[in-house]
Amino acid sequence: MTVTKSEIRPGAYFDSVLLMLLQRGLTELPGVEDAGVVMATPANLALLEESNLLTKDGEAAKPDDLLIVVRAEDELLATEALSQFDDLIKKRKPNMSTDFHPRSLANADKQLPEANWVLISVPGRYAAEVAHQSLDLGKNVFLYSDNVSIQHELELKTKAQKMGLLVMGPDCGTAIINGVGLGFANHVQKGKIGIVGASGTGLQAITSHIHNLGAGVSQVIGTGGRDLKSEIKGITSLQGLDLLKQDVETEVIILVSKPPAPEIATKIISNAQKINKPVVVNFIGYPSAGKNIDNLYFVSSLEEAAEMAISLSKNLKKENITNKNNYPKPKGYLRGLFSGGTLAYETLLSMQSFLSPIYSNVPINKEQYLADPLESKGHTIIDLGEDVFTVGRLHPMMDNDLRLRRLKKESEDPEVGVILLDVVLGEGSHPNPSEEISPAILEAKKLRPELEFIVLIIGTDIDPQDKEKQISEFEQSGAFVFTFSSKMIEFINDMYQDAIHQESASINIDDFMAPLVAINVGLESFYQSIISQEATAIHVDWRPPAGGNEKLMSLLDKMRT
Amino acid sequence: MTVTKSEIRPGAYFDSVLLMLLQRGLTELPGVEDAGVVMATPANLALLEESNLLTKDGEAAKPDDLLIVVRAEDELLATEALSQFDDLIKKRKPNMSTDFHPRSLANADKQLPEANWVLISVPGRYAAEVAHQSLDLGKNVFLYSDNVSIQHELELKTKAQKMGLLVMGPDCGTAIINGVGLGFANHVQKGKIGIVGASGTGLQAITSHIHNLGAGVSQVIGTGGRDLKSEIKGITSLQGLDLLKQDVETEVIILVSKPPAPEIATKIISNAQKINKPVVVNFIGYPSAGKNIDNLYFVSSLEEAAEMAISLSKNLKKENITNKNNYPKPKGYLRGLFSGGTLAYETLLSMQSFLSPIYSNVPINKEQYLADPLESKGHTIIDLGEDVFTVGRLHPMMDNDLRLRRLKKESEDPEVGVILLDVVLGEGSHPNPSEEISPAILEAKKLRPELEFIVLIIGTDIDPQDKEKQISEFEQSGAFVFTFSSKMIEFINDMYQDAIHQESASINIDDFMAPLVAINVGLESFYQSIISQEATAIHVDWRPPAGGNEKLMSLLDKMRT
Repeated sequence: MTVTKSEIRPGAYFDSVLLMLLQRGLTELPGVEDAGVVMATPANLALLEESNLLTKDGEAAKPDDLLIVVRAEDELLATEALSQFDDLIKKRKPNMSTDFHPRSLANADKQLPEANWVLISVPGRYAAEVAHQSLDLGKNVFLYSDNVSIQHELELKTKAQKMGLLVMGPDCGTAIINGVGLGFANHVQKGKIGIVGASGTGLQAITSHIHNLGAGVSQVIGTGGRDLKSEIKGITSLQGLDLLKQDVETEVIILVSKPPAPEIATKIISNAQKINKPVVVNFIGYPSAGKNIDNLYFVSSLEEAAEMAISLSKNLKKENITNKNNYPKPKGYLRGLFSGGTLAYETLLSMQSFLSPIYSNVPINKEQYLADPLESKGHTIIDLGEDVFTVGRLHPMMDNDLRLRRLKKESEDPEVGVILLDVVLGEGSHPNPSEEISPAILEAKKLRPELEFIVLIIGTDIDPQDKEKQISEFEQSGAFVFTFSSKMIEFINDMYQDAIHQESASINIDDFMAPLVAINVGLESFYQSIISQEATAIHVDWRPPAGGNEKLMSLLDKMRT
Repeated sequence: MTVTKSEIRPGAYFDSVLLMLLQRGLTELPGVEDAGVVMATPANLALLEESNLLTKDGEAAKPDDLLIVVRAEDELLATEALSQFDDLIKKRKPNMSTDFHPRSLANADKQLPEANWVLISVPGRYAAEVAHQSLDLGKNVFLYSDNVSIQHELELKTKAQKMGLLVMGPDCGTAIINGVGLGFANHVQKGKIGIVGASGTGLQAITSHIHNLGAGVSQVIGTGGRDLKSEIKGITSLQGLDLLKQDVETEVIILVSKPPAPEIATKIISNAQKINKPVVVNFIGYPSAGKNIDNLYFVSSLEEAAEMAISLSKNLKKENITNKNNYPKPKGYLRGLFSGGTLAYETLLSMQSFLSPIYSNVPINKEQYLADPLESKGHTIIDLGEDVFTVGRLHPMMDNDLRLRRLKKESEDPEVGVILLDVVLGEGSHPNPSEEISPAILEAKKLRPELEFIVLIIGTDIDPQDKEKQISEFEQSGAFVFTFSSKMIEFINDMYQDAIHQESASINIDDFMAPLVAINVGLESFYQSIISQEATAIHVDWRPPAGGNEKLMSLLDKMRT
């Protein structure tokens, strides 16, 4: 009959390496079957329970408490093991490092004032404070710590942006700055591909694949997984793109992240299009309906991102920022009035990466849902062939009445700048759509000459309607006519490019290109990793303020402000 | 001052062509500014209101009522216009067709017994009944009508499947059967590309693009937009794939639809993989992380679908159904225990098209959400680096403890057949992961030899851990080791292929290849379109049972059953 015993140490702080070592140390003691040494968060209590290590006492522990548990062969051995815990601490501690380390960031800065980076891997609740101190010292931050609130992230990144500094993270796993890997990073060759990524192992998979295929990377800028959320607005990603745009060694850029918030995707895409280098975009799992717009190349896997970037770097042609001065500048929102449901859906899919906010009665996600299909708002794509419109009425591919009425209404809306129509030819469809729709376009443009019309014609040269004649009549009415969806999408993207607000996020590239010199606060293994890569670093033997006591900490905090 | 007047005709039925013509007729009368002739559904009332055509009387009309509205210069002209409505009916009706048409499907069948297809475009509430009659007569159905309930759709398709017949639709806009376009269809060349599509204008865009690029199509099978929903189970799509598999003229297949229900995607993909022809898949907007698995080619736009199919048809290599007899057959669910968040997410993204149900703590959609990350269910992908797991604990890329505990737990679960692990090498990571994980794999395989392990190793030849040694040690423990995510995904797909239930949906290909002879019930323009394509057809001068009176209809219905 085994016995499980536990001990609680309220508010005690040990770093996670020591916690791991202590747990292993307990497990190796005589008669001990299993042990746990954890901060008593609900998740950690559940994990202890999984391993049959949760006691009644343990259940009562609070998230800030250190909980020590052993399961041993009998009562005596369990008690004996627990009693050796402090000896284990004493035994393990001196082993960890033989160097002398400063105890504070300020002291480290005095010892190594040329440090331009601070690596932070202390527990999440302390991390924001250390990051603020680092910025105050004028240093860039690699913030590995997770469990940092999004509010703290926004404060840090906004502050850094104003100071021309970078905050990579929180929860930033990976970066390679001037050849030095920070956090988790593979050894890879130097090369021409620069990467900005809101995804740690994504960056590792891409950089490894690039190296394994014989190519190399210039800079790898991590941003933390939440950088492309609405709250953070892509601050670090935009700074990273700006850096890689300036960096002469970077010839091709990869941008990788989980699906961004739609309006952030728009902003990032718009900024990426202003770079005269190819940009490979992998918004992992963000559905798109295109492969290439201008200098942007959309891919759907990490492997493909690496392979596309290598292929582009081998066949480098200077990407021209097309002169869009002769493109019409839209004077307001785009309204797409579709007769074809799938055409509407695919168009929405293509445009959602660069137009925002966008709404539809055939939405791709619930944010795009247009509650009243009779009232457009923002950019809107309407499928007029939806069931609700077709009770006792011919399909809009046969009968233009409904579309003409809607066209009139939209064209009278001063918020509207562009009206987009599909015209589907072939058997079954209206015998002569341009005859009815072109006059309506002329009429609308007479009232509001600044209004632009775009017509997508789907059909063949042997369709009954005479495709060439349809094209020419729509063109004569002043509409831009396309017979390829991809070309139309590129045109619309170009039209709206200048309308999208550009974010300036300038970081001095010369400062950034200085050799990496780092202060490491947190996991000592990260310090050793930097040293082993022959970069200069100093490790801070960091302790939580007030010994990790939350109440005392918050009191200190209040006294300071 | 204009005057708007309206008239309600309870339960009156006119087909939608006539409604359109009557509305136009009213608009052309002296002094009439605008007019509406509609079934008084809420949507149609709202549309009338948009056009300033909704009166107090009109608001009170019921969905089955016909509502006639005119807005004229004065009271007299409005009254006068309304009074001419019946004259307009008389004037318009004889113009529509000079032929004599049978009044019922049964009579049409007597006149043209060789008819193998019935085209149905009557209003939704009558359409299911006509489709049932058509199946009872042994005919395939092209069901253009929308506003048909999903329950009716399921009944019809289940019945058709048992009889070896096809029901394309409801809300099927497009098909090309043996060279004859049904519904809305472009004129295109004959060729080698066969298409199955749950998307009308999607089919039109693809077929037009194929023709415009100089290639051609064999058969185009529409399914209706809901065919790949859970309720309908892809019945028609599976039948369509089966037909194109048998059809010797079809060398490349395209499958196009809006995103299917996950378990239906799985089933369709699995069936498509059993065809020894290339299959181009465009689940529009369904995120995927791969380009190619076996004979399947995933594309993300309609244009790309056409272009990929043409390119495959030009470079046709016989797709081999790989002999998977020497592949391990999984004895249960797959459980992925990941240290890398993005690797977990991308793997989920790749596997969701062929494994179902699949759950995760980093889900792509809410159906996949795993409420308790400590308890797997079905196929599961866990990211062990998520914040909840890392409070006071080293990241699983540094410390294997959590993963080893979970590995043990999963391997003891009799429902588990495969355990998948990622191993990320490089700076910062554990110095020798195989030393700790390989023994755990050996241990688990000792207890359950049927358990399979798959290890994805991310890293380079110059990483500190010695990648080759890691690979070899994991292989020695009996795991399948991959260094490419795409190869691993293909392997897992192949392992599980035989485990997925195959649907047989056999339709006699010879019957199907007989020249199209059609009975048209509903829109006369569809009949004229078939005739103009030089196929044989007969039009039914269809009237709703009981003159469209709902109460009488339901009474008749009850008497029949």
